Formats: sequence, structure tokens, C-alpha cells
Amino acid sequence: MKSTIITLSSDFGQQDEYVGVMKGVILSRQPDCIIVDLHHHLDADHLGGAGILLGAAYPFFPAGTVHVIVVDPGVGSDRKIILAGAKGHLFLAPDNGIIPAVLEDGIETSYLLDCPELYHKPVSNTFHGRDIMAPVAAELAMGLEPGRVGPSITPADLCRLPAAVNHPAPHQLQGAILQIDHFGNLLTDIKAASFDQFIGDSEQKELLLSIREQQLSIRVADTYSDISDRSLLLIKGSRGYMEISINGSSAASTLNSSCGDIFLLLSAKAK
Amino acid sequence: MKSTIITLSSDFGQQDEYVGVMKGVILSRQPDCIIVDLHHHLDADHLGGAGILLGAAYPFFPAGTVHVIVVDPGVGSDRKIILAGAKGHLFLAPDNGIIPAVLEDGIETSYLLDCPELYHKPVSNTFHGRDIMAPVAAELAMGLEPGRVGPSITPADLCRLPAAVNHPAPHQLQGAILQIDHFGNLLTDIKAASFDQFIGDSEQKELLLSIREQQLSIRVADTYSDISDRSLLLIKGSRGYMEISINGSSAASTLNSSCGDIFLLLSAKAK
Amino acid sequence: MKSTIITLSSDFGQQDEYVGVMKGVILSRQPDCIIVDLHHHLDADHLGGAGILLGAAYPFFPAGTVHVIVVDPGVGSDRKIILAGAKGHLFLAPDNGIIPAVLEDGIETSYLLDCPELYHKPVSNTFHGRDIMAPVAAELAMGLEPGRVGPSITPADLCRLPAAVNHPAPHQLQGAILQIDHFGNLLTDIKAASFDQFIGDSEQKELLLSIREQQLSIRVADTYSDISDRSLLLIKGSRGYMEISINGSSAASTLNSSCGDIFLLLSAKAK
Repeated sequence: MKSTIITLSSDFGQQDEYVGVMKGVILSRQPDCIIVDLHHHLDADHLGGAGILLGAAYPFFPAGTVHVIVVDPGVGSDRKIILAGAKGHLFLAPDNGIIPAVLEDGIETSYLLDCPELYHKPVSNTFHGRDIMAPVAAELAMGLEPGRVGPSITPADLCRLPAAVNHPAPHQLQGAILQIDHFGNLLTDIKAASFDQFIGDSEQKELLLSIREQQLSIRVADTYSDISDRSLLLIKGSRGYMEISINGSSAASTLNSSCGDIFLLLSAKAK
Repeated sequence: MKSTIITLSSDFGQQDEYVGVMKGVILSRQPDCIIVDLHHHLDADHLGGAGILLGAAYPFFPAGTVHVIVVDPGVGSDRKIILAGAKGHLFLAPDNGIIPAVLEDGIETSYLLDCPELYHKPVSNTFHGRDIMAPVAAELAMGLEPGRVGPSITPADLCRLPAAVNHPAPHQLQGAILQIDHFGNLLTDIKAASFDQFIGDSEQKELLLSIREQQLSIRVADTYSDISDRSLLLIKGSRGYMEISINGSSAASTLNSSCGDIFLLLSAKAK
Repeated sequence: MKSTIITLSSDFGQQDEYVGVMKGVILSRQPDCIIVDLHHHLDADHLGGAGILLGAAYPFFPAGTVHVIVVDPGVGSDRKIILAGAKGHLFLAPDNGIIPAVLEDGIETSYLLDCPELYHKPVSNTFHGRDIMAPVAAELAMGLEPGRVGPSITPADLCRLPAAVNHPAPHQLQGAILQIDHFGNLLTDIKAASFDQFIGDSEQKELLLSIREQQLSIRVADTYSDISDRSLLLIKGSRGYMEISINGSSAASTLNSSCGDIFLLLSAKAK
């Protein structure tokens, strides 16, 4: 039998034992699963970006994978924990908007967790990733039917994050910085397809970027090495969203940009 | 046959290849074990806190797990390496006080490592985690009897850390900051049970915290979300010890606190 | 059948989902392999040091291991990806000099990757670690013959890094700082054997270190604890190269040294 994969994502960072202890709980119940750390630096203050990241990442895992997402500032309160299914994958997370952000409108099934007989006792008030989500993920990896974790809930009734707005004016494209990676690349929330539509037939290779009260020229590139000097480039990133980068340097430092920044891309026509 | 779990803890951080190379040594001998990174940011200058962390963490793993703890500034000197057993778990670490700190008085068996035929050759003077502890852990995971690693030693003869002192006066509880986590939560050495005893029947919800020459009000909370503003809260942490936190912010930054800080909790009666 | 080990090294750091997504791609094809994170903080600007690190690390893994090294600023350009074999290990990396740096003159076989039928589609222009190297590594772990990935290439035709120079004068040994670890130890490019030769029969225990316009005394030590005060020590590191350290403190901070620094060791005779 093929081992089930469980991915772990959180805002825990990696300096503490929190992730390791969750693995202990999972492996105590199901030693035959494969646990993969997916992302432990999710930003609880920018769940929309976290959702886009994980939404771009999960399809690289095989169907049957259980994805556990522990960004949970409401732990111990009456917020719910949910299990959702889409395209053969399962997602376990607090009902704080993260799962709809990951799956957009693609949630096929969803359940409210209510199976205390499966939890690790005693259940603490501060670490449901360890006491509730890890053991339930292990049980799912052992073949527990999703419907056994609790009552079904209509996907439309799940908490949602406020929607982002785009296209503020003709010849302009508004975006937000979702994430800054280790290299200082800025992941935006502009899908590559939306950008192609914005550019249209013009095949413009130079745009204006308006961010943090700066107006800067930015060039559209197919690869980093298209732009050999250290000027701004806009590239279709590996997640399917546009990214703002500098070849060999940090765009985040150069622009002094942070997660959540709003920016405009202006075509030359708008000047 | 169920695979044995080996957990790795150290003060290596995760930027270097040290942990990966230990895994190479283990997997070269026993490819069927499951290796879990438990904690790689232990503080060699605060082994007592490291011990409490790991003591709270190991019971989340199944009996039979081998826990390797490489905090080893004395590597290459005549310090000993020991193997200890408790509650079906095995612990492999330098004889520097860390294992008694993890297991308190619960060490059931202990041995001095003396089995050079099992070590990875040549044995370096600077990395016994790789050359001695990793291969011995792999052999234990393959079923080596603990008594085969070397002579038995009375647990009382192991190195111990200096004991901490508590209860300096009536209506006061003294504690130390053991660890600061990724969120800026301050793990203390005050057990939840000791705190309950200190509070007694009074069910006080507000105390005075004296730390770093500051006297501050702190509220006792059951969950983070009990305290919706950004004021100090004292909460029973998931490790079974009291933690000082701020909901949505870093208590460590607010208090300018560091690992090792001593503090007092004063009940209202003491004012 | 024994599971194949795949090690992953990169300059990705560990804050993003890049490593986890590569694991998803690998496990989607070959769930029975064992994936080990070896080093994710390689320095793209100092590939020589990265090569020495990995060259010292890979022999701790069993023959048959597939080592994937993603330091790839040229991703999407016409740089090639190569597969090389040595001592039963396989290495998959861009043709940017890193593999010859890892294996010195020991490359036994090498191939240019040209097997698009194995890649993960669509192939992005920015993440060949995920789209090309991960799936090919998985296929190799499943038993694909190395010769099936593309045409053979003579090892001498691979890109090479510029060679380092040593021995600038009698009684002097020139070195470079290759890497600074979590403890602030400075890994140098001076092999322990070269150092022994430099010292010769004199068995000098004290040398002069000239670095960053400072001239400092440094003592040769067998173990960290040989030097109980916080003065500079020169020690045979666990990778087989000399390291500059301070017992219980950071040599990097004390010397204000960075990766790439050139230094001289002068014997007393040269004074």
C-alpha cells in the first residue's frame, strides 16, 4: 500500500520544537505516513498571501495527500476547525479563511471537526495543531473517511477573507505584495493570465511600477538572465503569479517593500 | 516490523549541513528508521531550559524512540557520552547534565558509551554527533541492546545542572525564562501545577510581574483570545509550564527579556 | 529493496515552500525514496566553498544516493543541467562549476540532461529544481539508467570555477574563508593534510593570522577545550579542512570576517 503524505504548514518558524512534536503525535498513530514540511513561515497577518502560496503548491503533491495548515491565533476560542476536500486532496485548518484562500471556489466537501475521541488528551488551549489537527491527520492517513470527523458544512458557510480588488482604471493593474522570499523576490497576487490580458497585443516590454511613493521603470522578462544589470524585472513566477525581482539582488531591499504593499503597474499608454 | 523513530536535537541551527550529515550516517546503517528533527536551536548556555523543553516534548513520541541530543561544547575532551532509558525511550547525549534535566528523577537505566567498534571512523575531535552518537543511534534503532554500548553507571553519578530555586517568600513565586519562541512567547520554569497551588482558592486573575526592573500588571488567561488588547497575559502553555505572552504580539520584545531572566510573580495580597 | 536516498541542497533558505514543493514532485513519482535536506544556505556567490562543503558531506551517505544541488542563478537561460557519477553516487546540478567543485577530479561519468519526456510540465523559466531536477532525481531513484537522461559529456568539458591559489611564499600559507557556520566558526579551504605539511616537524603551536588588516596570534588546538579562554584557535574541522574558531564564542564576529575573505597564516620563523 502506498504511504499517505501529510504536509505541514504553519506560522511556527523552525526554531522551536512545535513542528517536531506534531510529527511525534502523527507517527505515534501512523508510522507509515510520509511527513513533508511545506511552509512554516506563513504570515498570520496576510492569510490571503498564505492561501495563494499554498494553492500554488499543493498540486505538486499526489492526490490523497493530507495538508495540515496551522495558522491559528484564535486557538482555544470558539473558532472551528474544518476539513475540506478538493481534487482528491484533504485540507485541515482553523476556520479562519485560509482554506477558501487556498482553494478559491474549488472546495468540494467540507466538515466541521467534532471527533474528540480522536484528539490527543489532554487537549491544551494553546496548541490544537498538536492536540487536534495532528492526530486527525494521522487518522485520515490511516484511511478514516472524511465524513467521520464531524458534520458536513456548506462551503459557502466557511469564513472568508475580504476579497482583493483589481483593475482600478484602464491601462493600470493594481496588485499586492503577498510574500517576500529568501532571495528578496516579491510575489504579487497578479495571475500570469491576468497580466497577459492587461498587456494584450502590445507586447510592451517596459512598464511603470508605482509602489511606496516611488515611480520606477520595470522590464518584463522571460528569464532572470534576460536582464543582466541590476534593474527591476517583472517575471512570470513558478507559482503562476507575476513576481517583481532583480537578477542577483533583492527587489525587496531595493524597493523597501513589505508584505501587504499595494502597487500599480502602468502601461506606457497611461503616461 | 514498525520502524524505529530517531529524533535529533542540537544547538546546530539549520543553516549548515551538520544535521544532514548525521542523517547520512544513520541512514547508511539503518535506512528503515524514521528521523525527526525535534529542536536544533537549543541554547548551550541554558541547558536547564533545553532539558525542560525536551522533557515536555519526548512523551509525544512512541515508546521505543531514540532521542539524540547534541549540545556538546566539550566535544573531544574527556567528557563522557551516555545512554539513558526511561519509560521505554532512549536518550543519547554528552554527560553534561542535559539528560537528567530532560528526565528529572526518572532515569531508569544509564550507560557510559564505550563501543568504538560501532563508531564512524575516523572519529573527529569536533563532531561526535556525527561520528559517535549518530552511528550508535542507528545501531539502537536496529535493535542493539542498550547494555551493549558500555558499562552501566548509576544515574546518581551523572553530571547534573545546578538546581533552580523557587518560592522565595510567601505570596511570591520566582521563575526563570527558559526559552523564547518564534512568536516571542516566554516559556517559564514554573509548572502549571505549582502555579495553581500558588494561586490556591483565590482565583486571582491579575498579578504583578517583576522582571528586568519593571513592575507590570499581568492577567491570567485560559486562551490567548481571552485578552483582546495587547497587554501581558500568563497562560498555561502547551508544554505544561506557565508562559508569558501577548496576544498577537511579542512579549519578549515588549519586556526586552532574554533567556535566563529571573522574575517574580506577586499576588495582590503582597502589595 | 532498499530505498534510495535523495539529498537536496540549494540556496533557497528554509523560509519558503520551494523545498517542500520539490519533495512533492519527487514523492509523486517515487514515494519510496528517502529525502534528506543537506544544505539550503549555499552561497551562490561562493560556489567553491559550497563545493568543498558538499564534497566533504556526501561520503557520509551510502553509495546509490542521488544528490540534487539547486544553485541556479542562470535558470531559464541556455545553461545546461548535468548528471555526474562518482564512487557510486549521482549528482544532479546546473553546469555552473558546482559539480567539479564537489568532486574535484573524481568525476567518473557525466551527461547533459536532455529528457523532456521526464520533466514536470509545464516547465517554468524560474524553477528548474522543481520542474526538471526533482522529477529526474525521482526517476533515477526508481532505477533509471544514468545514460538515459541525455548524451554523455567528457568531464573535462564541464564548466569549472576559477582555481584558488595557495602557498604564496615560504613560511606562509594563504587561505580563504569558505563558510561561516551557525557557531561563527570559519571554515577555510586549507586541507588538514596541507596544514600538517606546512607545519612540518616544527610542531608549532602558535602562528600569526593576517586577516582583514589585522595581525593576530592564533593557537593550534586538537579540541575546542584545549583553549579555555576566548582566544583564536585553529583546529582540524570535522570536514577535513582547517577551521578558525573561538571556544564558546564566534570567531566570525570577533574577526568581523565574511565568506570569501583571504587570509595568511605565518609561522613564527617568518616574523
